[in-house]
Amino acid sequence: MKQKLTIVKVGGKIIESEENLKQLIEKFSLINSAKVLVHGGGRSATKMATRLGVETTMVEGRRVTDKAMLDVVTMVYGGLVNKQLVSLLQSYGVNAMGLTGSDGDVIRSHRREVESVDYGFVGDVDTVNVLLLSQLLYANLVPVLAPLTHDGRGNLLNTNADTIASSAAVALSEVYDVTLCYCFEFDGVLKDATDSSSVIHKITKDSYQRLREHNVVSGGMIPKLDNAFDALEKGVNEVVITSIDGVGNPQRGTHITIE
Amino acid sequence: MKQKLTIVKVGGKIIESEENLKQLIEKFSLINSAKVLVHGGGRSATKMATRLGVETTMVEGRRVTDKAMLDVVTMVYGGLVNKQLVSLLQSYGVNAMGLTGSDGDVIRSHRREVESVDYGFVGDVDTVNVLLLSQLLYANLVPVLAPLTHDGRGNLLNTNADTIASSAAVALSEVYDVTLCYCFEFDGVLKDATDSSSVIHKITKDSYQRLREHNVVSGGMIPKLDNAFDALEKGVNEVVITSIDGVGNPQRGTHITIE
Repeated sequence: MKQKLTIVKVGGKIIESEENLKQLIEKFSLINSAKVLVHGGGRSATKMATRLGVETTMVEGRRVTDKAMLDVVTMVYGGLVNKQLVSLLQSYGVNAMGLTGSDGDVIRSHRREVESVDYGFVGDVDTVNVLLLSQLLYANLVPVLAPLTHDGRGNLLNTNADTIASSAAVALSEVYDVTLCYCFEFDGVLKDATDSSSVIHKITKDSYQRLREHNVVSGGMIPKLDNAFDALEKGVNEVVITSIDGVGNPQRGTHITIE
Repeated sequence: MKQKLTIVKVGGKIIESEENLKQLIEKFSLINSAKVLVHGGGRSATKMATRLGVETTMVEGRRVTDKAMLDVVTMVYGGLVNKQLVSLLQSYGVNAMGLTGSDGDVIRSHRREVESVDYGFVGDVDTVNVLLLSQLLYANLVPVLAPLTHDGRGNLLNTNADTIASSAAVALSEVYDVTLCYCFEFDGVLKDATDSSSVIHKITKDSYQRLREHNVVSGGMIPKLDNAFDALEKGVNEVVITSIDGVGNPQRGTHITIE
């Protein structure tokens, strides 16, 4: 039997608030299995860009990353956010180690090809260094992954944190029994968008079809769930969508599995 | 016999120039032994602070680090400089891994006590995690250390890069035969300050006394050499003061040993 690994992805909204951040770190520190934290930081990057007079351009929710913006996200994701998370985790007894994709060649990518939009220094993931991540986890280290990768030719590339999380989850599922946990502002996928207590506890491939047919899930939740099932098809054991309170708590959140 | 380890410390002047930086990376990549790179970045931090409207205050050459300045150095040292070095090293086939002291609890420090000056978030080194660094080196990784440490209670602390280098060198000399190489703008310690070719190839404890008595070394070189002998007394095998060209080249630079 494979050892259990929990990968938690946390977005910008949570890590920006000091209170939420500490709550998350506390919940995360209590997870008993091997674990990985993946963070975003887009809001902090936008704020810092504004302070530095660097213009933020988003296309379909993705950041266009010219050289000046690459420097901003390298500072904010790789420096400020990553190191604050790591030092805070250390104070909770978690032996965290912050990594961008270039550190130890952990995640290699290629610059996204220009089609209708030139996203600039944005990378699509090619390979995840399963051997090194496994060695670090085996040494009881907790990788904290920033949303930056590299192309092996000296260039850092801005990479979506959800993609970092799912790529790492799929790659590590070779070696581990992986639960991928997306931590966001709601308790899970809601049956009734106006009722925050109407969390659907479990979604399988069959029930997902029915939920879509009856328009219970719609809008932004569809790509999230499509991505979840994609990760499951590729070997991830379980995907959980939950709030801070649900991190590491199997009683809470929406649990997504194939069957 | 212990395995050989080379620790190279490189200052801000070198890493700021793209040409010098590439030259350094090339020389460093050719070092055959296990190796560690330690970098500064004070000039880049000062520039970024100015762009962000954060005032820089130096006392006796040391940066006073309030919360706003701590964020700047966390971004610049831990993010921008460290990750650019790491991705560049990767392109030269060096499996670099960037670390602040908080990553993997690599270097723990305490906030400097307030005497005549309150330096703010500045740390004096307490412990270096020799076990983890050895494990990383054993896995053929090359640690790239940023001049930031942590206190284990959630605080990052700004720490002098020369001190990071000498503390790591002393601690790792338990396990390795350590050469500590300070890379700066001159070829070595000069016999005649006006003649850049008058490099003193070797300084021992005895010859150092004579050089001081005859005022051949003076000024800023004295604390550098005092620190070098301190590291040697504590177990480091050799300290080298050299230029980029001398990195990894035993024919060049000033070699400092006890005897």
